[in-house]
Amino acid sequence: MSGIPDQRIFPHATGKAAETVAKHQEPQDLIFHAGWFCPYVQRTWIALEERGIPYQYKEVNPYKKEKHFLDINPKGLVPAIEYQGKALYESLILTEFLEDAYPSTKPNLLPADPYTRAYVRIWIDHINKQIVPNFMRVVQAQEEDKQKAALADFVKGLTTLTEKIKGPYFLGEEFSLVDVAIAPWVVRDYIIRENRGFLREAAGDVWKQYAEKLESRDSVLRTQSNKEHSAEIYGRYLRNEAQSEAAKAIREGRPIP
Amino acid sequence: MSGIPDQRIFPHATGKAAETVAKHQEPQDLIFHAGWFCPYVQRTWIALEERGIPYQYKEVNPYKKEKHFLDINPKGLVPAIEYQGKALYESLILTEFLEDAYPSTKPNLLPADPYTRAYVRIWIDHINKQIVPNFMRVVQAQEEDKQKAALADFVKGLTTLTEKIKGPYFLGEEFSLVDVAIAPWVVRDYIIRENRGFLREAAGDVWKQYAEKLESRDSVLRTQSNKEHSAEIYGRYLRNEAQSEAAKAIREGRPIP
Repeated sequence: MSGIPDQRIFPHATGKAAETVAKHQEPQDLIFHAGWFCPYVQRTWIALEERGIPYQYKEVNPYKKEKHFLDINPKGLVPAIEYQGKALYESLILTEFLEDAYPSTKPNLLPADPYTRAYVRIWIDHINKQIVPNFMRVVQAQEEDKQKAALADFVKGLTTLTEKIKGPYFLGEEFSLVDVAIAPWVVRDYIIRENRGFLREAAGDVWKQYAEKLESRDSVLRTQSNKEHSAEIYGRYLRNEAQSEAAKAIREGRPIP
Repeated sequence: MSGIPDQRIFPHATGKAAETVAKHQEPQDLIFHAGWFCPYVQRTWIALEERGIPYQYKEVNPYKKEKHFLDINPKGLVPAIEYQGKALYESLILTEFLEDAYPSTKPNLLPADPYTRAYVRIWIDHINKQIVPNFMRVVQAQEEDKQKAALADFVKGLTTLTEKIKGPYFLGEEFSLVDVAIAPWVVRDYIIRENRGFLREAAGDVWKQYAEKLESRDSVLRTQSNKEHSAEIYGRYLRNEAQSEAAKAIREGRPIP
């Protein structure tokens, strides 16, 4: 979620996520630079928690980025992983990095079979192109006709994905990177249920069951803060006043950077 | 390059690419469904040629898609790889698939080191978000001010990439997926040099040298058709009349599907 120049962001995780943060303060080879509210951060965080990889959590204040963080990561993006003094970023590149750097730490979230790995990446690509940007359009659209059009596109994106859900998870019993890639928007869909008339049922019963399965997954719950401080942040998105790079991109019809 | 409903496309590769096609007609475990003119196809094709993976080339006529192709690949996208009766698509997912499915076929285009793999993916992501869509905007923009704005964004995308070029290739001596990801647009940049005033020098001497290195690489030359039949295709893009899914997305300010 690139930059995030929105002001007045509550400074730290709360609820279950705060407990997880507290358990990950000791220095480790891998430092996870994060922002508690960011859905992209949550993707990488879910993968770290699922796999039990040792990490040190560091909250990045988007207005007071530490010199050390900017030195290794000039764009200042979160999520970022600092590994042996070098920084990497982009939520799903990070989850793939965790597979590559910790191949024997089980469970893996990317299956071993080459065909299935490509299949997982195809559906992650669908989530990135047809679901996440449409979610943001639903949130940011101000006119009712644009909200409806965006909602229709969003539901279509979900329906296409749903046709491939084996259940209970995307690939079946195995929790994979497809589930990781979509989960942060599932736990945030209350924003468009409460404000834009979205109903999970609109994407079908299979979607509804899958969404409920994802939002009750331990790693998802453990990386989730209380809703109270999120309302302020999402209010800016709902009024289309948010100034994050992602929000601006959606407003201008550009790809999310 | 999704769909491509543009009509009157010349039906097969010419020049050096036709020689390569002729060498890859025998049945193989891996079938490469391609379109000779498509830059996304060329990415996967370069990877196949670089690595010497046995493949059977099949030209897909976008207006007369064979039933078998649509059965395994309902979206009808090229490039597609048919492997053990199942189809995969998306150019860079296919290049990663070739690494996963043929790990011991040298050379690999994705380095073994986990950090470097992620680094390669970060810069491919930059190419996909900051270079390719801006190239298409430069081509499709009709008003002079929009052409100039798109050209500035395109050059900025190149300059940012160039800062990381070690030379002669992106990672140094080793040819990698970053080079594969950008090469098809380097060999097509004559379109915007001849029609939109682009100069390679605008992105600096290092970029110019790198571009010349890429366009003279064997695998790039072997997957390149003569220019004569491309002019007709690119004419439609230059007049912003192209009806491919990618062209429509650029026109409407949506991500390329």
